[in-house]
Amino acid sequence: MTMDKQMHQRAIDWLNQAADLLRATLDSPLQVKQKQNAHDLVTEMDCRIEDYLIQQIRHYYPNHQILSEEGQGDVFPNTEGYLWIIDPIDGTLNYVKEKNHFAILLGIYYNGKPVAGYIVDVMNEQLYYGIVGDGVYLNHQPLLPIQIASLETSLIHGNVHLFIHNRYQAREILNHSLGMRHYGAAGLDMISVIRGEAALYLSPRLQPWDFAAGLAIFTAMNYKMTTPTGQPLDLLKRQAVLACHPAVHSQVLDIIQSTDSEANNNDN
Amino acid sequence: MTMDKQMHQRAIDWLNQAADLLRATLDSPLQVKQKQNAHDLVTEMDCRIEDYLIQQIRHYYPNHQILSEEGQGDVFPNTEGYLWIIDPIDGTLNYVKEKNHFAILLGIYYNGKPVAGYIVDVMNEQLYYGIVGDGVYLNHQPLLPIQIASLETSLIHGNVHLFIHNRYQAREILNHSLGMRHYGAAGLDMISVIRGEAALYLSPRLQPWDFAAGLAIFTAMNYKMTTPTGQPLDLLKRQAVLACHPAVHSQVLDIIQSTDSEANNNDN
Repeated sequence: MTMDKQMHQRAIDWLNQAADLLRATLDSPLQVKQKQNAHDLVTEMDCRIEDYLIQQIRHYYPNHQILSEEGQGDVFPNTEGYLWIIDPIDGTLNYVKEKNHFAILLGIYYNGKPVAGYIVDVMNEQLYYGIVGDGVYLNHQPLLPIQIASLETSLIHGNVHLFIHNRYQAREILNHSLGMRHYGAAGLDMISVIRGEAALYLSPRLQPWDFAAGLAIFTAMNYKMTTPTGQPLDLLKRQAVLACHPAVHSQVLDIIQSTDSEANNNDN
Repeated sequence: MTMDKQMHQRAIDWLNQAADLLRATLDSPLQVKQKQNAHDLVTEMDCRIEDYLIQQIRHYYPNHQILSEEGQGDVFPNTEGYLWIIDPIDGTLNYVKEKNHFAILLGIYYNGKPVAGYIVDVMNEQLYYGIVGDGVYLNHQPLLPIQIASLETSLIHGNVHLFIHNRYQAREILNHSLGMRHYGAAGLDMISVIRGEAALYLSPRLQPWDFAAGLAIFTAMNYKMTTPTGQPLDLLKRQAVLACHPAVHSQVLDIIQSTDSEANNNDN
């Protein structure tokens, strides 16, 4: 399914509106006063952004299905026809604590196949999108794949608990690399791979709304996003995700499969 | 010792020049072609920035001592009189791999006491400085201390190896917090504490040029930067550093001192 140009333009307009709204909440002195009650604030803004996006989609595309983090989409979506997958604020803790390093994520799928993915790095005013069969763009400028020589000359991204518990041989992967970085927002950690800053991002547990936008962008870039055992991701399930530059994917799968303990690879 | 206004203005001018130079190397298409030889590039730029800063200091302040990462300063500096401590590129790997998240660091000391500290977040064009006895500024606007409620409602920063090896009870500190972030540039990880984004940054091993700028800024902010056992830092030694919001410093020291194994607290 080729991405519809009007649908693409609408998606961008809505995401830009949503990003403006999020930035405005941080600029407002009123919101700064709510820091003592930070978790209420973020829930309120999560819901406001989700509301806004869902209203737009429902208005223009009433027959499309929606899967969204805060649960205002369809209760039991399936992968038939168009499916919009939304994370209104990816990196909620960062939104509250850092006022930086958070994103709005949108993936558009047709019959379970990625069509387009959008990641808005809100505070840096960077819109990344990938159109499958076309390419990947940053603020409408083409982003071309960047050569990386090897895992040994690259940084990697992942949550610290991966390394503490050595899940998926994470320490061994780390030992092969130049070091680990972590922003705490799945979409932005994935973007570091798309930008060529890191070779991979590994997470033991992502929800569909955490990876759907990234999976579409990775597909448009011909990069690899699979389970840590190399299997295709299931669009309707929480699972472990390996988002990877294609030059190191098979090397990383080999390291993961060299594990002594299968227990480390349990996905839950 | 009160910071000399002319010295402050000169330091800022030199740092801005150095930051322009670093940004220009990344903008230039020539430099992008050198990615295959990234480590040579960074060494060259480290030295060019250090050269430039040292030439300026030597010209205007020939009697001052200089301690600098690439070794072009004084060979055996001591803490008598003025001492300038320089890291021309903090986060060298990030400079090469991310083209982001690197900084220029400068600390100015008099008889071993901090007078002023400067951290330039080069790609974000943010100049942080702290004048002891005056205050801390971001792009010349005052940065005021931010209340944080507790470790339990805060993010923390640190290198992943701290947590893998559980040095300084790092896992216990992590368990008390909301989560860990890591940028991989000591100056910028420290700035996250100054900005109120994180409660602390813990490192098992920093050189004087990694912490001298931050220590002066933390001192100007009345924040805490000590060894992980609460001792004052030695300006001429590599050591472990706990950079901490004052509201959580004693709690964190208590957690670190509750360790069962002294071996974990070895500084080397």
